[in-house]
Amino acid sequence: MDYRDELDTPALVVHEEILKRNVQQMGDYARSKGLQLRPHFKTHKTAEVARMQKESGAIGITCAKLGEAEAIAATGVFDDIFIANQIIGAKKLERLVALMEQVNLRVAVDSAEGAQGLQDAMAAADRSLDVIIEVNTGQNRAGVLPDEVLGLAETMRAEMPNLNVIGIMTHEGHAGKTLDNAELRATSLDAGDKMVAAAEQLREHGFEITTVSVGSTPAAFETTNVEGVTEMRPGTYVFQDNTIFRFGSIGPEDCALRILATVTSRPAPDRALIDAGSKVLTTEPSQWRDGYGYIVEYPDAEIVSLSEEHGWLQLPESAQHMKIGEKVQIIPNHVCPTVNLTDELYLVRDGELVEIWPVIARGRSR
Amino acid sequence: MDYRDELDTPALVVHEEILKRNVQQMGDYARSKGLQLRPHFKTHKTAEVARMQKESGAIGITCAKLGEAEAIAATGVFDDIFIANQIIGAKKLERLVALMEQVNLRVAVDSAEGAQGLQDAMAAADRSLDVIIEVNTGQNRAGVLPDEVLGLAETMRAEMPNLNVIGIMTHEGHAGKTLDNAELRATSLDAGDKMVAAAEQLREHGFEITTVSVGSTPAAFETTNVEGVTEMRPGTYVFQDNTIFRFGSIGPEDCALRILATVTSRPAPDRALIDAGSKVLTTEPSQWRDGYGYIVEYPDAEIVSLSEEHGWLQLPESAQHMKIGEKVQIIPNHVCPTVNLTDELYLVRDGELVEIWPVIARGRSR
Repeated sequence: MDYRDELDTPALVVHEEILKRNVQQMGDYARSKGLQLRPHFKTHKTAEVARMQKESGAIGITCAKLGEAEAIAATGVFDDIFIANQIIGAKKLERLVALMEQVNLRVAVDSAEGAQGLQDAMAAADRSLDVIIEVNTGQNRAGVLPDEVLGLAETMRAEMPNLNVIGIMTHEGHAGKTLDNAELRATSLDAGDKMVAAAEQLREHGFEITTVSVGSTPAAFETTNVEGVTEMRPGTYVFQDNTIFRFGSIGPEDCALRILATVTSRPAPDRALIDAGSKVLTTEPSQWRDGYGYIVEYPDAEIVSLSEEHGWLQLPESAQHMKIGEKVQIIPNHVCPTVNLTDELYLVRDGELVEIWPVIARGRSR
Repeated sequence: MDYRDELDTPALVVHEEILKRNVQQMGDYARSKGLQLRPHFKTHKTAEVARMQKESGAIGITCAKLGEAEAIAATGVFDDIFIANQIIGAKKLERLVALMEQVNLRVAVDSAEGAQGLQDAMAAADRSLDVIIEVNTGQNRAGVLPDEVLGLAETMRAEMPNLNVIGIMTHEGHAGKTLDNAELRATSLDAGDKMVAAAEQLREHGFEITTVSVGSTPAAFETTNVEGVTEMRPGTYVFQDNTIFRFGSIGPEDCALRILATVTSRPAPDRALIDAGSKVLTTEPSQWRDGYGYIVEYPDAEIVSLSEEHGWLQLPESAQHMKIGEKVQIIPNHVCPTVNLTDELYLVRDGELVEIWPVIARGRSR
């Protein structure tokens, strides 16, 4: 049966062929560059895609939150997990120690206060922890500035015997904020250069730095051209989305995840309502295109507004034959938070529903 | 123990005293106006708040989706449910018929095509269904125009013997799009007037119209002043939020739901990161105030940006003593989609955690 008849809507449908191609491509790229691939779990939050990433050569996985790490650890797919975020507070430190019983963990750190919490927890548990210093290469989110890296590393070496500084990381998310490919390249290379310089400085001061890690799908094929970068952490590449494909190198045909939605109202010739609103698509904008998603069957129709359970479509004349009950496929603006809104992904092969994948880390923001 | 020490973050905390006051106030208002109160389930999605609404005098409940209706029906709290949305497609019609075995249902309709689907399903099941015509009073989302109501009603009466037209509804959400209270009032009254006129016209043509239903929390105390409106469907009032309190009549002290978050990084004197990002707060804007939420302890600090698991705070000098590990309370811009991102609400009474409420309809967008 055609999956569109089998599935009730809205439903998040993953097209296996596209997914496999995307996963393989990044695995091949990392191998060709001699880089370690540690993809981000946050995009898909499923054991099944994680397994495909492992088969493509991934040496471990990256998580945004401890709760994500607990979810993927429980599957046994990866036993080497990097939490690319600060672990702060007594409750989380307890959970961190418990999780270390199951898997190899490494954790980001960007402050002496944060490091001290880790140190105290490790000392109490009689354990040691590999830490990765988070570096702000221009995004201005978390992370220490490049010239502060050595100071933080030395504080940990001097005062925190249970922490091992093994590397540095950055999230060069700022590189993807431009629509200009030359600017994307320049910003990515700048981030890579800053990272390699910081790693060299640490090595000159006696630190054994084995990991110089960069992340962000839009910059994935750019930052990694800098000699000395050792690890990449792309996330969105498995599904791609309406924000990513603005870069011109990928199009809708590379987007593996589409939301199947139903037209529920046709109150005016140029207006249609679908049953996917902000509780499915999220209100995130796309930088390259107006509207809240790309409609595969009607690329010229725009999702002009969302309420919680309604998507409002503005229809050009060419789309005005759209009918109540018709199903359409939507590529979301940002696939990661969309996946986080659902419990299941529906895998389609050759137009048929073949598997249902639980989103095991949905809502695991703790 | 102080709930802030007991809870890991981010956590959605409901303050019982404020919630009870909000619920009671709307119940009292509806009673004072002689209106039937049919509050919206979508805001809280919990059996517990639904029960409080029933105790406050609610005669039934409103749901946005069939999946929400199934969830609240299963609790037994309400046996009278209005799905204020179009039910389109074979899968949903099957579920609708099944749900009618459990509870009294009424359903919105805004097209002959949609009505025909309901008619066919009811005829096949040998049942009849109460339908409410959705009217577009200016929001321009779903719904027929006021002068199309009679035509749709007559089509159903003539051709669809298993459907009973018992009322009309509108969602005057457009009224809340202004920051001006006089404009809010004028738009609300206009919507109410259109509804009452449409109901009168139906009655003149022999329809027994018992329900003239309006909805939207910002307009709740305005539209209901129109003589002839019989039912109100407010939702957000139970928790209130950073979009609602722009109207001046309510402030942060009336917001029952706050997100407890932890400061995780302090990379610059004027910048802090918290562990609540778009996967907790959503990227919805507030119309009256910049930023992605109102920080109770630091009202002058702004949440200037969100990534999925980070909130980026811009700190004025008065807030620069904020420390890593500190916990803050955030009133979200729009509470309904925030609740939809979590599995549990934490009920606090006198500063202590007293109950955990499952969000039983989280993600029920089908």
